[in-house]
Amino acid sequence: MKYSGLNLEQRHGKARVRVARVWRSKQGHHSMVEWNVSISLLSDCINGYFHDDNSDIVATDTMKNTVYVKAKECSDQVSVEDFAIQLAKHFVSYYRQVTSAIVNIVEKPWERVHMDGQPHEHGFKLGSERHTTEVIVQKSGALQMTSGVEGLAVLKTTKSGFEGFIRDKYTVLPETRERILATEVTGSWRYSYESIFSLPQKPLYFNERYLDAKKVLMDTFFGCPKEGVYSPSVQSTLYHMAKAVLSRFHDVSSIKLKMPNIHFLPVNISTKDNIIVKFDDDVYLPTDEPHGSIEATLSRVGSKL
Amino acid sequence: MKYSGLNLEQRHGKARVRVARVWRSKQGHHSMVEWNVSISLLSDCINGYFHDDNSDIVATDTMKNTVYVKAKECSDQVSVEDFAIQLAKHFVSYYRQVTSAIVNIVEKPWERVHMDGQPHEHGFKLGSERHTTEVIVQKSGALQMTSGVEGLAVLKTTKSGFEGFIRDKYTVLPETRERILATEVTGSWRYSYESIFSLPQKPLYFNERYLDAKKVLMDTFFGCPKEGVYSPSVQSTLYHMAKAVLSRFHDVSSIKLKMPNIHFLPVNISTKDNIIVKFDDDVYLPTDEPHGSIEATLSRVGSKL
Amino acid sequence: MKYSGLNLEQRHGKARVRVARVWRSKQGHHSMVEWNVSISLLSDCINGYFHDDNSDIVATDTMKNTVYVKAKECSDQVSVEDFAIQLAKHFVSYYRQVTSAIVNIVEKPWERVHMDGQPHEHGFKLGSERHTTEVIVQKSGALQMTSGVEGLAVLKTTKSGFEGFIRDKYTVLPETRERILATEVTGSWRYSYESIFSLPQKPLYFNERYLDAKKVLMDTFFGCPKEGVYSPSVQSTLYHMAKAVLSRFHDVSSIKLKMPNIHFLPVNISTKDNIIVKFDDDVYLPTDEPHGSIEATLSRVGSKL
Amino acid sequence: MKYSGLNLEQRHGKARVRVARVWRSKQGHHSMVEWNVSISLLSDCINGYFHDDNSDIVATDTMKNTVYVKAKECSDQVSVEDFAIQLAKHFVSYYRQVTSAIVNIVEKPWERVHMDGQPHEHGFKLGSERHTTEVIVQKSGALQMTSGVEGLAVLKTTKSGFEGFIRDKYTVLPETRERILATEVTGSWRYSYESIFSLPQKPLYFNERYLDAKKVLMDTFFGCPKEGVYSPSVQSTLYHMAKAVLSRFHDVSSIKLKMPNIHFLPVNISTKDNIIVKFDDDVYLPTDEPHGSIEATLSRVGSKL
Repeated sequence: MKYSGLNLEQRHGKARVRVARVWRSKQGHHSMVEWNVSISLLSDCINGYFHDDNSDIVATDTMKNTVYVKAKECSDQVSVEDFAIQLAKHFVSYYRQVTSAIVNIVEKPWERVHMDGQPHEHGFKLGSERHTTEVIVQKSGALQMTSGVEGLAVLKTTKSGFEGFIRDKYTVLPETRERILATEVTGSWRYSYESIFSLPQKPLYFNERYLDAKKVLMDTFFGCPKEGVYSPSVQSTLYHMAKAVLSRFHDVSSIKLKMPNIHFLPVNISTKDNIIVKFDDDVYLPTDEPHGSIEATLSRVGSKL
Repeated sequence: MKYSGLNLEQRHGKARVRVARVWRSKQGHHSMVEWNVSISLLSDCINGYFHDDNSDIVATDTMKNTVYVKAKECSDQVSVEDFAIQLAKHFVSYYRQVTSAIVNIVEKPWERVHMDGQPHEHGFKLGSERHTTEVIVQKSGALQMTSGVEGLAVLKTTKSGFEGFIRDKYTVLPETRERILATEVTGSWRYSYESIFSLPQKPLYFNERYLDAKKVLMDTFFGCPKEGVYSPSVQSTLYHMAKAVLSRFHDVSSIKLKMPNIHFLPVNISTKDNIIVKFDDDVYLPTDEPHGSIEATLSRVGSKL
Repeated sequence: MKYSGLNLEQRHGKARVRVARVWRSKQGHHSMVEWNVSISLLSDCINGYFHDDNSDIVATDTMKNTVYVKAKECSDQVSVEDFAIQLAKHFVSYYRQVTSAIVNIVEKPWERVHMDGQPHEHGFKLGSERHTTEVIVQKSGALQMTSGVEGLAVLKTTKSGFEGFIRDKYTVLPETRERILATEVTGSWRYSYESIFSLPQKPLYFNERYLDAKKVLMDTFFGCPKEGVYSPSVQSTLYHMAKAVLSRFHDVSSIKLKMPNIHFLPVNISTKDNIIVKFDDDVYLPTDEPHGSIEATLSRVGSKL
Repeated sequence: MKYSGLNLEQRHGKARVRVARVWRSKQGHHSMVEWNVSISLLSDCINGYFHDDNSDIVATDTMKNTVYVKAKECSDQVSVEDFAIQLAKHFVSYYRQVTSAIVNIVEKPWERVHMDGQPHEHGFKLGSERHTTEVIVQKSGALQMTSGVEGLAVLKTTKSGFEGFIRDKYTVLPETRERILATEVTGSWRYSYESIFSLPQKPLYFNERYLDAKKVLMDTFFGCPKEGVYSPSVQSTLYHMAKAVLSRFHDVSSIKLKMPNIHFLPVNISTKDNIIVKFDDDVYLPTDEPHGSIEATLSRVGSKL
């Protein structure tokens, strides 16, 4: 939007809208989700900024109400991706002014409780890593859609090293073939569906994908239970994890991984006269600050990022 | 400590000392723990406060070093409780000035990864709730010791109500027999061992207790997988959980539970003319703020709190 | 409360109740506060725990409503302490079952904006450290009352050292007369008023006290603007700060200070062959983890803690 | 980087590197800063990802060391922007492989203490909002540079409304000309300097700009001390704030503002029979969740975003 020699790019929305949805079968089997929803609308509301005229502005309170309306309308359980698409579709189709809707949701990891192997009908416990999605829908129905995971903290106590890097006058780090490798993966993979009209129809399709993608990421990080797999760098491990997801899922066109290198420093303590602790691959100082930050996006050549 | 008409009570220590310990079998099976340790010493160091004389002060940096020394000395895997006791014993026995040592540790919930049912030799993933301990050791060997859990978030979608409470002119809350019950349990149970010389010798005894106590708490909260159990109030559920732990473990003398009532509010949205969302035990607004705060300590009559 | 060989100590309440109160003068001068209120009631509600009978339980939702009612009733601006007392008084006098009420409040540090020296009529900006209070009122009118500050982060770049402490085989820390001293003070001082009937009547009395006490704490920490004052240990500085408050305010009977020693580590980086950074009281690594933890309570001999 | 049908975009670096720098005059006047530095390098290190060959990788530990070296080299006080530029320049010029360096820094708001109006020589206290910068330097010397502020929480108790917005069947929000307006501004403004060779030479130039820009933002938000200024929407207020910065500073080419609408909800509590609290512009419920999210970038037409 241009106005008197200035250019304005804007979005407005509602963030941190929390909603829980329970589905109850007649037999007493309950399913539930808890979502934290953020909505941003790109819309033609120039007068709100320049002329104190709010007549083209969707109130963010209205957006919030809509989350609850749409949750109510889900008579059967849906994936977080499907819910995000329903919401985004609503905003671009219902409001003349809205050209594009961006919906981000984080699902709280409530997991069904099992007792001695038996699933509980209505009991849930909070797990750790979180399922996320970002959906962007244009008025035309054009779609960009990613799913992801955040907070996936993984660690292996061996089969990790870092050697042969650049050594210069600022370098102190010794080379090693034996260190702890720990990271908290934030990943998001883009699906190749480019329109809201070409989505898979199978219920809970994207929930399955999420579980499968997470498994592929973890299996590649850890290697097999007995031998593991050697990691020559976080970069290399990240690449193999990303590649494994692209190889496995043909409707994934790209994947972005952020894998901070969370350091477990070898503990050596000594004075001039006295060795107090000598490291022997046993005692480590874990620290979040500072951390290495390694991130990359791997995509099929020819696909959109 | 008294000085010129004033009385001083003091402690000093080191907090947030992080240490990880890896144990490696010859066959390549690794175990690991990550602990966040806080130490406080009660000691006779009055001159440090009143006379700028530090000669009776244990430097907190020295305390930190000691954590790593003691971790190194654990040639076999130990429970977080045993490690806390080792540390506390050291401070009261090694330093003439120290009359009492208080050690608090939170264990980070690294869990061994399983792949297709097989445990990984050296792969770990972060779980959710955390194992904690507080140990107080006197110079005499007298012991106070609690284990606990924090961050244990549990939720059931039914079999919870709240009725018959006091109604007065400030009361709005309707009575209900159907609500979501959600809480994040912080629990700590006191063991009856009163001396460092009378502790159970079985390795990892307190790790087993921790897992068992957590299971008892959860089983009581949820009830059986098919039917569940009705909760007439958080208070009642808390009492039954606490009682179940005391009944089951004869070396537990008391248990304290904090169970905030984390509200999942029914969603009803309407205007004067229009019902937008009508609640039907389906759509909820989860909120952490405000929350009910219910806490209680249950002990055997005659035991020390 | 005793029941079938068990003893129960309990409290319940509402935490994180947020309220803002605006006072508007006819001339357009506004004052405002924002409080985060937590209430705990000690009450005779044994049947709620043991017999699924809630008839003696004050619903926490009702407590929340009461916060807003009492805020509404404050037609003139009140200190956070006075508000806490009003609330606590209400609960012990209104409910037969309630024997004692504990109210904790943290005031958000909204500060009036000044423009070119002129105070704004209705503009506020968030500052840093927070004013706190804890008030305990018994049915009899007996009172325990503290005011405090949290998040008061202060730092001096010199006039701090630490020498002459215990050296043993775990000690690495060098002695120094030149270091950065940084801490985040959490303080609370107890007033000597022992009944709700004997409180000072001056409006906003406790707000003045808060500002004065904070000034005394800071003046003692820093010393005069030109010369400062040498700190031989956090312990000594803490003692002088506490003593200054007791000396200055005759209605303060004790004061508790927590002053973590937040370390600014000297930066020295070198390899066997090469000095990369050599510390010269210039470059520091600040860290929150680990930190020293020094805390003490100073009271007049004969006063209650 | 392309490899076997795949495209890789990557960066790696070190995040959360904390450094403090003290400058001491001979007369005993000290200045100090504390920075939290994050570095990302775009570099030609394809072999690290694809071929387990780290020979083109700058170790993140080396990056961390460099922060301390460069801080040491600042013999006179520098702005956070100048420090970021020095760091970024180093990486692109020193390493053949590095094509671009991205440096983000957050300055901790240590403010010199004043006592009775007199500045303290070496005493500092933590304030609230934070000065930030992001600098991107290419090997060619091309520069992109923003300064910013985060955590600037401001509130006015009147002169704010929201009327005339879209009303539809999901709309509940009433129109109002009297509400509290509260936000936590995150702002960043881009400077028009496009090369590291064309920067202003005046020492601490960007510190002055930071203080001035913050003042312009606040003055525009609040209006004059006596009358204030009416805000018809967050959008309008944001636009006027952004425009004021562009108008005032000719070397600023664009500015991005995020201004969440932090709601202070009117408190009305009632039952069918009883009005418990009736709102009269006096008692509010402040909440961070959900919040409106309004953000926009305003730029001169023709400038780069």
